[in-house]
Amino acid sequence: MQQNTKASGKKAVAKKPKKVSGNLATKKNVSNKKYNTFKSPIKISFLGGLNEIGKNMTLYEYDGDMIIVDCGLAFPDSEMLGVDLVIPDFTYVERNADKIKGIVITHGHEDHIGGLAYLLKIVKIPVYGTKLTIGLIEGKLREHRILDSCKLKVIDAGDKIKLGKFEIETIHVNHSIPDAVALAIRCEVGLIVQTGDFKIDTTPIDGQLIDLARFAELGKEGVLCYLSDSTNAEKAGYSQSEKTVGQSFETLFKMADNRRIIVATFASNIHRVQQIINVAVSQNRKVALSGRSLENVVAVGQQLGYLDVPDGVIIPLDRINDYTPDQLLLVTTGSQGEPMSALSRMAFSEHRKVNITSRDCVIISATPIPGNEKSVTKVINELMKLGAEVIYERMYEVHVSGHACQEELKLMFGLIKPKYFIPVHGEQKHLVKHAKLAEQMGMDPSNIYIPDIGETIEVSDKIFRSAGNIPAGRIFVDGIGVGDVGSIVLRDRNKLATDGIITVVVTMDKISGDIISGPDIVTRGFVYVREAEEIMEDMQEAALHAIEGCLDEEIRDWATIKARVRDEISHLVFDRTKRSPMILPVIMEV
Amino acid sequence: MQQNTKASGKKAVAKKPKKVSGNLATKKNVSNKKYNTFKSPIKISFLGGLNEIGKNMTLYEYDGDMIIVDCGLAFPDSEMLGVDLVIPDFTYVERNADKIKGIVITHGHEDHIGGLAYLLKIVKIPVYGTKLTIGLIEGKLREHRILDSCKLKVIDAGDKIKLGKFEIETIHVNHSIPDAVALAIRCEVGLIVQTGDFKIDTTPIDGQLIDLARFAELGKEGVLCYLSDSTNAEKAGYSQSEKTVGQSFETLFKMADNRRIIVATFASNIHRVQQIINVAVSQNRKVALSGRSLENVVAVGQQLGYLDVPDGVIIPLDRINDYTPDQLLLVTTGSQGEPMSALSRMAFSEHRKVNITSRDCVIISATPIPGNEKSVTKVINELMKLGAEVIYERMYEVHVSGHACQEELKLMFGLIKPKYFIPVHGEQKHLVKHAKLAEQMGMDPSNIYIPDIGETIEVSDKIFRSAGNIPAGRIFVDGIGVGDVGSIVLRDRNKLATDGIITVVVTMDKISGDIISGPDIVTRGFVYVREAEEIMEDMQEAALHAIEGCLDEEIRDWATIKARVRDEISHLVFDRTKRSPMILPVIMEV
Repeated sequence: MQQNTKASGKKAVAKKPKKVSGNLATKKNVSNKKYNTFKSPIKISFLGGLNEIGKNMTLYEYDGDMIIVDCGLAFPDSEMLGVDLVIPDFTYVERNADKIKGIVITHGHEDHIGGLAYLLKIVKIPVYGTKLTIGLIEGKLREHRILDSCKLKVIDAGDKIKLGKFEIETIHVNHSIPDAVALAIRCEVGLIVQTGDFKIDTTPIDGQLIDLARFAELGKEGVLCYLSDSTNAEKAGYSQSEKTVGQSFETLFKMADNRRIIVATFASNIHRVQQIINVAVSQNRKVALSGRSLENVVAVGQQLGYLDVPDGVIIPLDRINDYTPDQLLLVTTGSQGEPMSALSRMAFSEHRKVNITSRDCVIISATPIPGNEKSVTKVINELMKLGAEVIYERMYEVHVSGHACQEELKLMFGLIKPKYFIPVHGEQKHLVKHAKLAEQMGMDPSNIYIPDIGETIEVSDKIFRSAGNIPAGRIFVDGIGVGDVGSIVLRDRNKLATDGIITVVVTMDKISGDIISGPDIVTRGFVYVREAEEIMEDMQEAALHAIEGCLDEEIRDWATIKARVRDEISHLVFDRTKRSPMILPVIMEV
Repeated sequence: MQQNTKASGKKAVAKKPKKVSGNLATKKNVSNKKYNTFKSPIKISFLGGLNEIGKNMTLYEYDGDMIIVDCGLAFPDSEMLGVDLVIPDFTYVERNADKIKGIVITHGHEDHIGGLAYLLKIVKIPVYGTKLTIGLIEGKLREHRILDSCKLKVIDAGDKIKLGKFEIETIHVNHSIPDAVALAIRCEVGLIVQTGDFKIDTTPIDGQLIDLARFAELGKEGVLCYLSDSTNAEKAGYSQSEKTVGQSFETLFKMADNRRIIVATFASNIHRVQQIINVAVSQNRKVALSGRSLENVVAVGQQLGYLDVPDGVIIPLDRINDYTPDQLLLVTTGSQGEPMSALSRMAFSEHRKVNITSRDCVIISATPIPGNEKSVTKVINELMKLGAEVIYERMYEVHVSGHACQEELKLMFGLIKPKYFIPVHGEQKHLVKHAKLAEQMGMDPSNIYIPDIGETIEVSDKIFRSAGNIPAGRIFVDGIGVGDVGSIVLRDRNKLATDGIITVVVTMDKISGDIISGPDIVTRGFVYVREAEEIMEDMQEAALHAIEGCLDEEIRDWATIKARVRDEISHLVFDRTKRSPMILPVIMEV
């Protein structure tokens, strides 16, 4: 965990972020020289969630006390070869372990809870969240075998908790998972509102509209600083209600007629699952679940009362053959085309229990997350080749976003009326767009700041400025290794991936330097060896030539000999193939 | 070129395609038993362009004569590690070289001409195309140093050429490159129309509307079989005219005010480039070009009269510092976020001549091709971090598609009124959607067929059926190697990419089997070795243990010893790390 991995992306984390540049607006300096001598400012530091979608984690520090909001994971980019997931760098948290009074989680999505198990292995701090959120966290901590040693505390939306010099109030919001909350964070210096992920759904499935009244009250009270979800800041208008998806299901399920229905969706979208089940029940279909995460969430959701399923509706996947297609609906994971997911296995005819035929109607109730477009399309194409009808978002309203669009963002901004604004939860383009919305609402650009990961912002009545950086970055989890894959390993993997490896092995006499055996050439991922005998022989000769050259020049230093072998072979290979495989000379001493 | 590479994608090429399954329609058998005893059918075979976007290539065969339409390349999928480009398998063409009367190219896009240089190295056949198309092909053949040995023939839209027993007529269509044509292919059996890529643009930049009248005439004459572009078959309505982009440029360039404008677009979209130049001229900006392919296309376009640039408008990129930002407009490649492109280099501050600042307004005049979304977003984010304003399609009308949407497809179908229909140029989902449009137009589903790569379709008045397969697939070009990277090399690259490699080297006595040196462990892309001494030592010990075990059991067979070493280390590594690197044991004999 010591490594501060700032891999791959050129301008990773260390770079100073830019101020909102504005369409035609001029840049202004964000710092304010008039210190408030009575109160020190609150420090807000970001360990993730900025210039990325994923691993949200924010630290608040005041007068020696610290609290954390969320601790998420991110999924690896395509260049992070072999990496399973990415978590924040916890160095700063570890260093300040004794100051931390607790961590508050806004909702149960991976990008807000997925790093928690790794964090709690390092620092033991109490975790606060609503019932469903804590329920999902419990499952994760159990998997990591640390549940018993962790302090989890269930709170309700509307509750206020005291954590050191901070008081945190939770406020109900709508999102694509139930039981999500925004936070009002108070200390002597003032009131900060952080939305977490939210949308405004006026017809939510659970009947619980986002608590706009409370946000309005906070706005009247006076909000010093506002941190808000920027995910959909590029999208005009309003997000659609989750209920519209249910209406689409009504129509589509009927159209499916005598065929089996398979719906792929995010496991955590319990309201979506509820709607699927409701419509299935009304049309006399049994429901079977495929995918471990879905089974888990449905179990937790039922147990905690978030999911209402009449007895006998859910049947085991093993029993689907007892029913005709028109009596069945399958809910499955894999809406993002994940290669090992249930839906992918169905599409590639590798699912042990589900065979896709022309008597299937598959509904993909999700939008591809950027980067997943091609894998989703592959799954759609394969399902179609098997004869299934496939319905996906482009064609019908089978998915709605869980994040506020521009009009909702502006509405919230208008209620909160903050003194300072920090757009969070987005890539640069989302943050910039969100900042511009605030400008359009009349905010002075110097009261808006777009920070980067690792940056600390000081906020008080008179102060709003960037105040240096803390250690932050990306820690790669690969298998059970945390942080042992860093930039060097990734650079090697990228090289190996592109052109393969050529290993040159030679046994030499330690004293005389005579070649005792070899040089032998072994390649992987370079060319198909059986059809490339000529170049294999030429490489062997080149290696021999390089070594003998060294020996003639009385060079006995293995490092120099290896370098010469590498050079000679790399030139030969590039001339012949225009490829640059990794070349690995190994000298065995006898 | 012998290898028939059917790599990666599970169900690659060999799989039998399904008939149009239809929303609620029933499947019907495509074969028709009543043979026409007078004329043998035309055979249409597909070497690419089906179940993929890319490497379009179609073969027509009748009575011993063959012609080819297009010969494109495809860009590699993310799992085709290190592959530069993908071309069709030319085995069948090579085998029938003496029958081929010529190849006709519909337009100058890479997915229609990119494989030609590789094809012409194998078979010398005359190439027919319109002036711009041939101009672009010349450039490619010159790069491959085969221009002098190739026969290129310029034809005009409307021309008819005789190739053996075929007569081919070209018909002007609109597309995102000038001089695109559809083909009417005639032989004794009947008339086939293949659209190539097309859209209907009623206000095209060059004033030349797609020749709908001629398509109508052909429809009246009677079209036996129709092959049509399916790229946008999912998109409702009509594609927008190229002219709308020019109108957006007018507005946006004015908004840019005193800033420099940078427009990224596809090099081959000469009409787009023309519009950029027109608006630049009208607003008194000089134009500089960045990106080799753009410079090439502009040169060819000017030379052949497709691009009208007043003298003194285009300045060398070296001279941009002689002008103020408001006097400049840069046109650049890289609209797809390609890592080595001009725009990417600007975004990552690696361009030698262009520095991005807040005085830049960047317009990305293209849509990300599926799979490129993330790299385009990265470029946008980086440009924004440098302070530039970035305008991309989601925000304004800065791009229109070059392919017909549903209403255009239906209009063409209505004019052509074919007896049989084969949707081409698309993934399965596009082909299926296009087939359904034809059904909606009243076509009998048994007269529609969705073939796959390698499939041969027999067509005559009474026959419309799948008639077996020819060799077809994907040939990978890596560096200058064509076909030497196949499925085994790719499998190795994928393994190397995911978890790296562990090489175990040991020198042993040939006769006694005694270990003379080693075993030594060398890893790359596995763990950061300096922080992993323990596992390195344990692997060494495991290797020693495996070898000594073999020696104790009197095993002297190197293959068995290697297998034992591999097993032992792979178990150790998986237990400790849950990773599965490639393990490569090498035994040196002395």
